[in-house]
Amino acid sequence: MTISVETFFLNSDAQGTLQAQIQQMIAEGILSGRFTKGEKLPSSRRLAAHLGVSRITVTLAYTELQANDYLTARDRSGFFVSDNAPEPPRFVPRHPRQDRIDWGRALGRRFTGGATPVKPQDWSSYRYPFIYGQADPKLFDHANWRHCALRALGQKDFLALTTDYYDQDDPKLIEFVARHTLPRRGILAEPDEILITMGAQNALWLTAQVLLTQRRTAVVEDPCYHALRDILTQSRCHLTAVPVDQDGLPPSALPEQADVIFTTPSHQCPTNATMPMTRRKALLKKARDMDALIVEDDYEFEMAFLASPSPSLKSLDRDGRVIYVGSFSKSIFPGLRLGYLVGPRPFIREARALRASVLRHPPGHMQRTAAYFLSLGHYDSLIRKMSQVYAGRREVMERALAQHGLSIAGRGVFGGSSIWMRAPGGVDMTEVNDRLRSHGVLIEPGAPFFHGDDPARNFYRLAYSSIPADRITVGVELIARELAGRA
Amino acid sequence: MTISVETFFLNSDAQGTLQAQIQQMIAEGILSGRFTKGEKLPSSRRLAAHLGVSRITVTLAYTELQANDYLTARDRSGFFVSDNAPEPPRFVPRHPRQDRIDWGRALGRRFTGGATPVKPQDWSSYRYPFIYGQADPKLFDHANWRHCALRALGQKDFLALTTDYYDQDDPKLIEFVARHTLPRRGILAEPDEILITMGAQNALWLTAQVLLTQRRTAVVEDPCYHALRDILTQSRCHLTAVPVDQDGLPPSALPEQADVIFTTPSHQCPTNATMPMTRRKALLKKARDMDALIVEDDYEFEMAFLASPSPSLKSLDRDGRVIYVGSFSKSIFPGLRLGYLVGPRPFIREARALRASVLRHPPGHMQRTAAYFLSLGHYDSLIRKMSQVYAGRREVMERALAQHGLSIAGRGVFGGSSIWMRAPGGVDMTEVNDRLRSHGVLIEPGAPFFHGDDPARNFYRLAYSSIPADRITVGVELIARELAGRA
Repeated sequence: MTISVETFFLNSDAQGTLQAQIQQMIAEGILSGRFTKGEKLPSSRRLAAHLGVSRITVTLAYTELQANDYLTARDRSGFFVSDNAPEPPRFVPRHPRQDRIDWGRALGRRFTGGATPVKPQDWSSYRYPFIYGQADPKLFDHANWRHCALRALGQKDFLALTTDYYDQDDPKLIEFVARHTLPRRGILAEPDEILITMGAQNALWLTAQVLLTQRRTAVVEDPCYHALRDILTQSRCHLTAVPVDQDGLPPSALPEQADVIFTTPSHQCPTNATMPMTRRKALLKKARDMDALIVEDDYEFEMAFLASPSPSLKSLDRDGRVIYVGSFSKSIFPGLRLGYLVGPRPFIREARALRASVLRHPPGHMQRTAAYFLSLGHYDSLIRKMSQVYAGRREVMERALAQHGLSIAGRGVFGGSSIWMRAPGGVDMTEVNDRLRSHGVLIEPGAPFFHGDDPARNFYRLAYSSIPADRITVGVELIARELAGRA
Repeated sequence: MTISVETFFLNSDAQGTLQAQIQQMIAEGILSGRFTKGEKLPSSRRLAAHLGVSRITVTLAYTELQANDYLTARDRSGFFVSDNAPEPPRFVPRHPRQDRIDWGRALGRRFTGGATPVKPQDWSSYRYPFIYGQADPKLFDHANWRHCALRALGQKDFLALTTDYYDQDDPKLIEFVARHTLPRRGILAEPDEILITMGAQNALWLTAQVLLTQRRTAVVEDPCYHALRDILTQSRCHLTAVPVDQDGLPPSALPEQADVIFTTPSHQCPTNATMPMTRRKALLKKARDMDALIVEDDYEFEMAFLASPSPSLKSLDRDGRVIYVGSFSKSIFPGLRLGYLVGPRPFIREARALRASVLRHPPGHMQRTAAYFLSLGHYDSLIRKMSQVYAGRREVMERALAQHGLSIAGRGVFGGSSIWMRAPGGVDMTEVNDRLRSHGVLIEPGAPFFHGDDPARNFYRLAYSSIPADRITVGVELIARELAGRA
């Protein structure tokens, strides 16, 4: 029996070559049990005519499937589903009748309901995306990333790709971080003082698990990165939020006693304040006085295009009390999920054991590709290019904001990729955001960054990392118009 | 001033092309501050002669570095470090003087000291690696993986590569798992009942966090996967270990009361027992009677080459009490770190929120590459090839074991990738392992799989997933000889 050509159709929004699509249709038909062993495929001429593709495309797809033993060719009769083709499922799938579990009781712990807001997946379809933390296709060095990934897929790197590293990391990436990345932040560390993490998020999470308990107190900046607050809330430690000022976290406002202080000195998240040197020293002294540890999230240090970056807290630390968090996910692309923790051996040892238990290790292929991208100098070129473009966009943005009289709450004198904004007192930026989205404008309401049950609702973040310079002015105008209607 | 050619040398065991190595040397010299702006590079002729490479190789490296703005070319004078080259570090790195932290006090929780043993990273340098769970370069379909990875690196997949999915996953991978992978195990699930995880390890970890507390009881098989026992110990729940027999976990031996039962019905880990259908039904009934949940790790179900795989527990579950754990890391390669959790929505929702907090999501590139590898049918071809080869190796192994009178404790009638072995009562396989390593033989001592303070020391696991068939006989002979010396 010949399989009818009618069962084949090309999906107009499918990705990949026509040949790959045809292969996929046939493989799926066999795997789902729709095509069975010995059945004859339509002739390449008929299928090509039916799909409106060239005959050679169909023939190539058939030949490839033959090589994989899905199909066999019989002389002059065409192609048939091979006797060695994979088996279709043997069991008829059935839906469970009724969920009899009382999930209210069965769940031991809940992790939903945190401060981290739902963000739009479809941000790239907005015309004015003042969105933070997504890669800009116009800036990213796709060609060289691809080149490095290809190299990391080569036979020579087979082990780096496939191996179970257990609790270890790619030695090439560790070496580059130790020899090149960290020295630029004034930090000297040995390989066993460094742990590769699934981005800064994972680094902060591991740190909280190792250092905090229900009896310990953590200090966070207010406002701060909402996901960090969720991590600390889940750890059930005591939490003290200290309001930041134009220079970041003020040491004088710290509580008398704390165990761990989380801070973002390079660019305070989300206000972009850079902590001055005197304050950095004062913070270290204060931490020493109360015998607290400091977790330094060296957030966006690469994006210091308006002034030279300050030395990291960790480089000033003589006591071994600073744990350093860095990330490549922000500067390369967030889907990379690669960051690193640097700290004293006893700490890294525990974080490593926990990481092994939670996920073993970040995929070797991503680590090796990043190692090549870094060591061939592409990363630094990318950062320079991003800095130049960001500087340009920021200039346009500041001009537009001034022109429309919008209030800047924190701009950061060193750079960054966003500006922290304040609307008039009574305005709820969550509502404004909903309205703006219908005009194609994406902003980030500020409330989730604040501590407490009654957060300020009139702050918002405008990022320039993903919006082209020539759309900024109109975008800002739309925001201004929406706000004017509420004043 | 011209940079001396003496500062350049090719590392004989470096990877990558000569051109890439030269580029890297120069980029590193600039980034580390050894080469400064305006310094002249050696002429391509001199450097080529010094390194013993062709002149065009050096010229190409220089030209590429010029394109990246590391170097500039001046007519007839050669190449110079560009004025726009990246800056070397501004701070002199200093070692911290003295660690003043009392880490015994500062660490809130400890994660080291679990049952999971340290495994050799250099397994591939052993001649007789009876090692479990590493990819075999001779079997893995490197060419097609590379092909799929390349496709996933294309412009069309830019978002899949770079995007921050927040708490979501690649929709293409989810769709394939829902439409093809799970139906073959008799399971129908909607996308919001599926969560992609960093391998089965991460799936088990997330499950334990969501379901267990200090007041709840988990049941594990004895022996069982040591990393699972570490996960449960860390969760601080009550733990009951139930000895398995030749058919896996016996429902009649379960305690009166338990909250969550962890089991491996397809291939019990590490004994390889496959649970018969009657016992699967009895286990489900028992769980219903005590209102317990079941976590089914559908371990190595693909490797059923000696008999058809049994339906999964989840496919027999009418109550929604089975949470299903699957993995691609074992069957494709462990460095992939991709698995999945399937369960009722209230459970998946919490696991998703926790995953977002811990690591956000597995890298989009790995997910998309796997989606292509699966949907183009390469995965099924790979499994068929592995099954055929494993069946052949296993035959050799069984023959060799019989010939030397070594005792099999559990072989699994459905297949798998290893055999569970028992040495005579007084033998400590950890010691035997140390001795065998010096003869190039790698086995896995069984003690870490057992529960309790005084585990059986005379068991061991012999895997045939990474050892070529023609080395098995001699490898087994070496084991037999070592054991004979201790009898």
